[in-house]
Amino acid sequence: MLLVALSGWNVGQWVERLQKKMPGREIVALGEPFDRRAVHYAVSWKHPAGSLANLPNLSAIFSLGAGVDFLFNDDRLPDVPIYRVVDSDLTNRMSEYVIMHCLMLLRQTRRYDAQQKEKLWDDDRFQPAASDVRIGIMGMGELGQDAARKLRMMGFQVAGWSRTPKQIDGVTTYSGDTGLQEFLSCTDILVVLLPLTPQTRGIIDERLIRGLAQNGRLGKPALINAGRGGLQKEADILKTLNEGVLGHVVLDVFETEPLPQDSLLWTHPLVTVTPHNAAMSDPDAIGALVARQIAKMEAGQEPDYRVDRARAY
Amino acid sequence: MLLVALSGWNVGQWVERLQKKMPGREIVALGEPFDRRAVHYAVSWKHPAGSLANLPNLSAIFSLGAGVDFLFNDDRLPDVPIYRVVDSDLTNRMSEYVIMHCLMLLRQTRRYDAQQKEKLWDDDRFQPAASDVRIGIMGMGELGQDAARKLRMMGFQVAGWSRTPKQIDGVTTYSGDTGLQEFLSCTDILVVLLPLTPQTRGIIDERLIRGLAQNGRLGKPALINAGRGGLQKEADILKTLNEGVLGHVVLDVFETEPLPQDSLLWTHPLVTVTPHNAAMSDPDAIGALVARQIAKMEAGQEPDYRVDRARAY
Repeated sequence: MLLVALSGWNVGQWVERLQKKMPGREIVALGEPFDRRAVHYAVSWKHPAGSLANLPNLSAIFSLGAGVDFLFNDDRLPDVPIYRVVDSDLTNRMSEYVIMHCLMLLRQTRRYDAQQKEKLWDDDRFQPAASDVRIGIMGMGELGQDAARKLRMMGFQVAGWSRTPKQIDGVTTYSGDTGLQEFLSCTDILVVLLPLTPQTRGIIDERLIRGLAQNGRLGKPALINAGRGGLQKEADILKTLNEGVLGHVVLDVFETEPLPQDSLLWTHPLVTVTPHNAAMSDPDAIGALVARQIAKMEAGQEPDYRVDRARAY
Repeated sequence: MLLVALSGWNVGQWVERLQKKMPGREIVALGEPFDRRAVHYAVSWKHPAGSLANLPNLSAIFSLGAGVDFLFNDDRLPDVPIYRVVDSDLTNRMSEYVIMHCLMLLRQTRRYDAQQKEKLWDDDRFQPAASDVRIGIMGMGELGQDAARKLRMMGFQVAGWSRTPKQIDGVTTYSGDTGLQEFLSCTDILVVLLPLTPQTRGIIDERLIRGLAQNGRLGKPALINAGRGGLQKEADILKTLNEGVLGHVVLDVFETEPLPQDSLLWTHPLVTVTPHNAAMSDPDAIGALVARQIAKMEAGQEPDYRVDRARAY
């Protein structure tokens, strides 16, 4: 039996789609009556803390979204293997978001939007090309590498920073604390795709932002965070925007979600807010992944993308 | 001697950049005094009609922008070979524009912009993936093929329509009048990159728009014209927008440019206007191309991308 433990998402839709991908398996949702001993697998997205405890035959937990940070908020999380989502559908969606916002910054979309409102035809200003602009990606896992490849194909210069050293064709890579300053100093648009772990919490702070290139072709540097809200210090983002250090910020994630009504980010002219939908988990794509992972397990193989509890990722 | 014959562009900047790319050559701009017999080459962007006549030793005209339609407005255009611009810098810029606007339509950027203004956090609506959406490109020359390749890499389904049949990997191709209806009927986002010729003038009309798919994942079809304003009938675009046939229109080009202040396109909520800057001619990149073309000619070879006067392209 597979237990579906979600909060904030449409449970009925997920149960229906998962059932379609695994027609022979019994699937129950949290809140329905079920025999706790019959549960062998659980899929979770922000399950209520403690709701996966007391499942004596549970053998694995599958996260349904890209991040797994939420799992570690549950101090009664059972000690079974946890698997995260690496799926081409989700990866493609994240790259759509990243490439679109990098292009919008390059092509000054917000400026032309404002000019349209004023019926102003100004075709005179120099337009940098993608090859003039340096994108730096923090987090070079599956998402970061796919975004890097597509940004390169659009003509951008691309660098990447990760915790551990990585070699990626056509991408200048930096790693660790020592590589961070150098990485930032040649970054015009910073794209953050890091997982949220104890090491990365609050990493997007005033000091990091002040390290970004101030000599780029776009004028001031820009920031895109599509990772997790816990990575950023929103007070520092607003301060550096208002002091003219940052030119524009695109945020899909926030310290508190939904973004509170009194947040100054909503109305700041240099901030683009999206409601944590950069890379939606599609029930069909993710359901097929979970079915493949369970089939592997039942064939005696290890499923892919196991979470390292020591790294919380 | 090279004659620079421009209107609407910064002549001084072009002369300076062209001189840098061809240091040994004498370069003059229209309006300065010069010996008409000394002129062997002309570069043009919307030169005043007649200004290239009476140049007895002129051997070639090089256009400085992607289109050459403007040349044929000059009934005293000398009968010498004309060469158009095919340059990776210009091609990349056009693809930036096309891919960005296709992604903005896919990711419903205008909807999320409006929600941000209302401080509305709505992450609940289903988000189609690029692979759910069918882009149809009219005009499969260098620009169309580069855009097609990059749209495919972003995950979109891509089809192309051209005057003559073409085979392109991964792209469903259609051609001629007979292929047009079928092409339109499976197109969710129509991207127009055609040259303006007597055959294509006014091709984007009510009938063409009504042929677009009405069963796509974005709801209503969308139109992006980054070719030439003469391709479109703006009254038909406004009519089909207002009748709910079209969902959104992105226009970089217009029947009259600059777009007149009284055009309803400026303020229509479903229209994005940009000031004919989808693919700017960069003086450095285009100057280097002209230098290469003249060097070829002087080495006794035929320069590339000669215009066929019979096709006006």
